[in-house]
Amino acid sequence: METKTAPAPATVITSESFLAHWQAHRGLTRRVIEAFPEKDLFLYSIGGMRPFAHIAMEIIDLTNPGIQGLVTSQWKDMSQLPHSSGEGMPATKEELLVLWDETTQQLDRYWAQLTPERFQEKVVAFGQYEGTVISTILYFVDNEIHHRGQGYVYLRALGVEPPYFWQR
Amino acid sequence: METKTAPAPATVITSESFLAHWQAHRGLTRRVIEAFPEKDLFLYSIGGMRPFAHIAMEIIDLTNPGIQGLVTSQWKDMSQLPHSSGEGMPATKEELLVLWDETTQQLDRYWAQLTPERFQEKVVAFGQYEGTVISTILYFVDNEIHHRGQGYVYLRALGVEPPYFWQR
Repeated sequence: METKTAPAPATVITSESFLAHWQAHRGLTRRVIEAFPEKDLFLYSIGGMRPFAHIAMEIIDLTNPGIQGLVTSQWKDMSQLPHSSGEGMPATKEELLVLWDETTQQLDRYWAQLTPERFQEKVVAFGQYEGTVISTILYFVDNEIHHRGQGYVYLRALGVEPPYFWQR
Repeated sequence: METKTAPAPATVITSESFLAHWQAHRGLTRRVIEAFPEKDLFLYSIGGMRPFAHIAMEIIDLTNPGIQGLVTSQWKDMSQLPHSSGEGMPATKEELLVLWDETTQQLDRYWAQLTPERFQEKVVAFGQYEGTVISTILYFVDNEIHHRGQGYVYLRALGVEPPYFWQR
């Protein structure tokens, strides 16, 4: 913690602690995936929403090509993403978890190249979503929390106790 | 945006933009409350979870006494909170929205007193949750997104189209 005499923007959150925050959320989402019975992970849904495996694949699609896009400024089109393109959908929970863990490693690897000066830079994510680097990252994390919340309802409806939300 | 020559922590997000981010989420949650049919807001649930009015009251309980606690360092015990104490539960959607809007104003008012230097300070929220000011704030926002995601499933199961997640 540094002391400051001149008024300067104080550090609300550091880049390192934001990555840790995101990865802790990813750890919780991984435990939600694990909590699903194999069949229900791919087939169970409520109110016409997607099964949780598809939700998890959307999170993978945003996170990994997302952080690559933010770091390299090379964006894939949404239709080219592994899941949205209809390809790359895993057939088992085990395969999904392998993809999940690869994404976790990719996030660490690319984040290390994201210099803190870049957070306020303007971006057009996936060639269509205007924002800044930080607003785009917040969107990815918020989207994961939002959809994982849906997964909690699926689990409760299936009679499965979900992991504690606060346990990361 | 200031330019820096010496290595200093770059601004990942400013205090002002974090408040705007939180209030935008609160605006979306308000639209989710509004989207519920009156009766279902207080009675409908899936898998033994709470009806959405109770979830909204938990968010109100955390947000308003929460920001007051962070700013004043005076924390209410969890059992003293309006909703958790069993008192102060509104009887109608209109009453809930009044409480919601009061909380929105309180958040703006108290946030203005939260000097950015304080974000890294250690706190024990509600006398029992250890963290920093920023980790506690992130918890409040994440908790709102998480529970609102549950509300989306309730709405879909009720055949009601929820507001777009990205529209804030």
